[in-house]
Amino acid sequence: MIVVMSIGASTKEISDVIAHITELGFRAHLSQGEERSIIGVIGDDRRVPEPDIFTTMPGVERVTRISAPYKLASRGFHPQPTLINLNGTAVGSNKIAVIAGPCSVESRSQIIETAHAVKEAGAVALRGGAFKPRTSPYSFQGLGEKGLEYLADARAETGLPVVTEVMEPGLVGLVAQYADVLQIGARNMQNYALLNAAGQSQRPVLLKRGMMSTMEELLMAAEYVLSNGNSQVMLCERGIRTFETYTRNTFDINAIPVLKEKTHLPIIADPSHATGKAEYVLAAARAAIAAGADGLIVEVHLNPAEAMSDGAQSLRPEKFVKMMEEVTKIAAALERTV
Amino acid sequence: MIVVMSIGASTKEISDVIAHITELGFRAHLSQGEERSIIGVIGDDRRVPEPDIFTTMPGVERVTRISAPYKLASRGFHPQPTLINLNGTAVGSNKIAVIAGPCSVESRSQIIETAHAVKEAGAVALRGGAFKPRTSPYSFQGLGEKGLEYLADARAETGLPVVTEVMEPGLVGLVAQYADVLQIGARNMQNYALLNAAGQSQRPVLLKRGMMSTMEELLMAAEYVLSNGNSQVMLCERGIRTFETYTRNTFDINAIPVLKEKTHLPIIADPSHATGKAEYVLAAARAAIAAGADGLIVEVHLNPAEAMSDGAQSLRPEKFVKMMEEVTKIAAALERTV
Amino acid sequence: MIVVMSIGASTKEISDVIAHITELGFRAHLSQGEERSIIGVIGDDRRVPEPDIFTTMPGVERVTRISAPYKLASRGFHPQPTLINLNGTAVGSNKIAVIAGPCSVESRSQIIETAHAVKEAGAVALRGGAFKPRTSPYSFQGLGEKGLEYLADARAETGLPVVTEVMEPGLVGLVAQYADVLQIGARNMQNYALLNAAGQSQRPVLLKRGMMSTMEELLMAAEYVLSNGNSQVMLCERGIRTFETYTRNTFDINAIPVLKEKTHLPIIADPSHATGKAEYVLAAARAAIAAGADGLIVEVHLNPAEAMSDGAQSLRPEKFVKMMEEVTKIAAALERTV
Amino acid sequence: MIVVMSIGASTKEISDVIAHITELGFRAHLSQGEERSIIGVIGDDRRVPEPDIFTTMPGVERVTRISAPYKLASRGFHPQPTLINLNGTAVGSNKIAVIAGPCSVESRSQIIETAHAVKEAGAVALRGGAFKPRTSPYSFQGLGEKGLEYLADARAETGLPVVTEVMEPGLVGLVAQYADVLQIGARNMQNYALLNAAGQSQRPVLLKRGMMSTMEELLMAAEYVLSNGNSQVMLCERGIRTFETYTRNTFDINAIPVLKEKTHLPIIADPSHATGKAEYVLAAARAAIAAGADGLIVEVHLNPAEAMSDGAQSLRPEKFVKMMEEVTKIAAALERTV
Repeated sequence: MIVVMSIGASTKEISDVIAHITELGFRAHLSQGEERSIIGVIGDDRRVPEPDIFTTMPGVERVTRISAPYKLASRGFHPQPTLINLNGTAVGSNKIAVIAGPCSVESRSQIIETAHAVKEAGAVALRGGAFKPRTSPYSFQGLGEKGLEYLADARAETGLPVVTEVMEPGLVGLVAQYADVLQIGARNMQNYALLNAAGQSQRPVLLKRGMMSTMEELLMAAEYVLSNGNSQVMLCERGIRTFETYTRNTFDINAIPVLKEKTHLPIIADPSHATGKAEYVLAAARAAIAAGADGLIVEVHLNPAEAMSDGAQSLRPEKFVKMMEEVTKIAAALERTV
Repeated sequence: MIVVMSIGASTKEISDVIAHITELGFRAHLSQGEERSIIGVIGDDRRVPEPDIFTTMPGVERVTRISAPYKLASRGFHPQPTLINLNGTAVGSNKIAVIAGPCSVESRSQIIETAHAVKEAGAVALRGGAFKPRTSPYSFQGLGEKGLEYLADARAETGLPVVTEVMEPGLVGLVAQYADVLQIGARNMQNYALLNAAGQSQRPVLLKRGMMSTMEELLMAAEYVLSNGNSQVMLCERGIRTFETYTRNTFDINAIPVLKEKTHLPIIADPSHATGKAEYVLAAARAAIAAGADGLIVEVHLNPAEAMSDGAQSLRPEKFVKMMEEVTKIAAALERTV
Repeated sequence: MIVVMSIGASTKEISDVIAHITELGFRAHLSQGEERSIIGVIGDDRRVPEPDIFTTMPGVERVTRISAPYKLASRGFHPQPTLINLNGTAVGSNKIAVIAGPCSVESRSQIIETAHAVKEAGAVALRGGAFKPRTSPYSFQGLGEKGLEYLADARAETGLPVVTEVMEPGLVGLVAQYADVLQIGARNMQNYALLNAAGQSQRPVLLKRGMMSTMEELLMAAEYVLSNGNSQVMLCERGIRTFETYTRNTFDINAIPVLKEKTHLPIIADPSHATGKAEYVLAAARAAIAAGADGLIVEVHLNPAEAMSDGAQSLRPEKFVKMMEEVTKIAAALERTV
Repeated sequence: MIVVMSIGASTKEISDVIAHITELGFRAHLSQGEERSIIGVIGDDRRVPEPDIFTTMPGVERVTRISAPYKLASRGFHPQPTLINLNGTAVGSNKIAVIAGPCSVESRSQIIETAHAVKEAGAVALRGGAFKPRTSPYSFQGLGEKGLEYLADARAETGLPVVTEVMEPGLVGLVAQYADVLQIGARNMQNYALLNAAGQSQRPVLLKRGMMSTMEELLMAAEYVLSNGNSQVMLCERGIRTFETYTRNTFDINAIPVLKEKTHLPIIADPSHATGKAEYVLAAARAAIAAGADGLIVEVHLNPAEAMSDGAQSLRPEKFVKMMEEVTKIAAALERTV
């Protein structure tokens, strides 16, 4: 951490800052420039959650953090990639994992039929929402536990592990009984009670980036899960909110190489939410793999026009087959497999 | 809702869309333009949660919603302003309500001393966090129930009602035992389980806008609370996230007149989070009142340099006194009182 | 400037960076922390236009600039406020200057009639566009030089100085013949050839913030004008682009106190563009004055429904009279006059 | 265009709007819903540059445009892809065009040596800036005409056509004497005088998207060039500005498939600016090709640590060779060539 003093800060102000740094258990290192002084804070500045607090002291202009505020999620402290087993596929390895299924579980037959279709096309896991976060209280909110049962039925029929969202800490136990992977949705990325509960469960977690969240905040959210003792976290880039309106979200493709560099956790991309329109999903899926993603999570619906949620961005099964063919070729160009 | 057909959509495609609209229980109204056809959907289109689903049909270019998706929060359906009683002040009336206190409850003496200070300066309620949402798992997370007790002690001493945050549905009951107003924080604006739980409690709710949520999403979040039977909701503009980095957030001052027009609910502004720096809080507070806010929620700390959270944006009590003087003058210019 | 080395950077990498700093004519100051080293660069780091270039050296993680990159615009180097004379009003003083008029000059009679109306209501200068930046090549592009003549006629009739936009360097001379103040529009804030040309003219400049520009970039754009020898620059906050769609722009009200602190130049607010809708302009104008703006620039049209541009955000003259009354009251509350 | 009336709009208000629509030369088509009326405007609504103006009429709630505001750039009106010849490569065809070179021309030998290097690696054109838009007036502003001469020398030596930026209308003639393609930079995307001048030249134009411009605005900017009679326009996605700070810009990869659908013009991606850091350029370049880009423009520098601009995002020649190998493989996976 570095404390930048104002031009014209007095000697007294400088020594007060140094005294305060020392009080906090750090060492201070003063560097006097031509215009102003800067003071380095030597020690683990993760212990100062809000460096800005120094700006309350007279003569301080601003404060800059040096260390990343996350540690368990950092590749610096854990150079080896974390691998997460999904039905025999090590997510984070050279093999790319594709998770597919409907936005919402709508009926037993729908989820089973979809599971067969995506498995045949090469998916390694089944997605499907039983508890749905919806902008409107008047929208379909999911089948709840009944939906979880249908997901388990689909797993029993196809062998595909189940990825499904949990929306509140009190339901982590229930969802974990049925699910193989707990999904934490974009709106809940900073729902700390939920992150803590997921961190205490034994299930791998698929953590989606908030539509309003920086990569650093995503890594800090992962840190919540990791610091509760659960090391099985996959990060998911699913598009962020910007001023652009032609697409539902802006797919932050840069996040893939950046996160691969910053963290050892696997990175999954969600081309369905990242674009919001089925006609752009294939291009986004190809781009994600080309950028180095470890996997994809994709919405597939037997009949998108009748879908109870996210119909506009869901692929029909035959389109999903085409997507798998294309991403397999892209993966091969990078010497990876799907 | 209006379905815009592509240039060159066929007669068959148009009639298929009309048939689908009719199936859903609406009437369709075709309007043939020079370049293309558009089809009006007559009926309450709030029943179609995702108008975009029509884009899955051949020949459809896009769909435009006509009605606002919220109803209970809408001034169109409820022209009278909602008034919320806060210790005798009707929030939403001509009298402006100022809620003040520390970001976090840090000790019994701290919260009681602060309560006295803000009361004396004219605050009508006390804020203070017992459960704190923190970006880092390593930061101070609040005193929990002990903090709630201290808040109750401060109320007992000063008579000020207590506004405090609740972060998970399972704690709504506990927090409601101590709090007069339940605060739902920016990160939880779309935590639907929490909104539902708050909607089922008997306490007024202060609902903060998410840092990257639109006003429409804020109104939809309020709709969750309202549709659960709790009509006592105050909305809070606290700054949104943009590309600007000189301030912590960008204070969306426009939201004040816009929300006053769209909804009957009172609008509170939070100049502390909206700026993130104590030196800008007074200007932002004055602007909020000038723009028509019904109240303010402001962070005040006895010694910001020692605050356990949000020190950089907290006012010292003497600065808060000055703020009250200034906003009182601005209010008077608009024939309102504080 | 501070160079942050990676965890594990070698001694050789550190000494190479120090050597490079020395080569560039700075002194280097090494500070060895527990995890990593940081190297302070002593000297005027404005001479290094792209501090990031150090990240091309092995072992460097990132670089942080310490000094603001602007100097002439900085209050640190020029503590006294700059005052700009507008028809006897010193813009930047305690007296608030209101500039008003139509978006576009549409006819001689229109601009003269509007000039009389806004003068009567208390405006100190007349705005009106003769050259118009339009998103569409098919939209009305302004009357050009004829429009400038009409503006001069309106000045002759009313005595109001004229503020009008110039869009290309080759026209600065022509526009300066007619205009009292050269406006540089938001889309041209980083049109450096234009900034240079305006800097070489003798006219005061009203520089609007780009809708996509940070405050720092606005100050750097001002630096272009100032460094060409023209010290008469007014900055204008007119709203920035965000994800919010209920308003045309998001009015960054924080920019007013922040810019007042960072620079000695006067700050004007444009509530018309900042909201985009006439019904919100009064609230935004009041807020701007309450936040400390030195002036306003407001669109007024005799008949907004017939305006050739910006009709939706233009005030009718009677509404402008009301605005003047309200901002006068707000100004009085702050012991300022209009 | 559709005019949405308020709930409760009177018959008189509705008939006034219809009368106004008719006056403007359109036909009006009234559709009475349960809650409110909507009025379709039949005719080419591109003639109404600001649909919002209807909101100035009593009883009007809002107005929605139906047609895209661009026409010449639209694939609807010009289904065949536009091909632009670049040294024998038809940009927009199955063959991918890579343009490479330094950010700035720094010396004759530098640009010639770089030209040889990028040609050998497979680039079809040379980029290099002679006139540089710089945020700071104190930064290197380019070599000017001398830089253009060096570019011409590099072309003479290597046969590579030259792509270089022009920043002001008055210099279009000069730059066009030396350049094969005129680049219009992100900051100038809405510099209409420049767009008009480029539209009147005979040179192909590489038009970069503004860092906070929507795709629609990019297409409207292209419309300026096209409507001046120059049909040779390439669009360039180079990253947009968002809240994310780990990268210089956010690469809007979605823009590639979206623009391919909306327009017949070729789409080039700029992975250098889209990421801002050399270590992420290869991933972004691969992603761009995988998403369907017709070409790339990439910054290459012989010694990035000594570059006079954009060093941090410039590839060394050997890294550029690697990039070409990788994008060639990705292209092959899509049955395209480089």
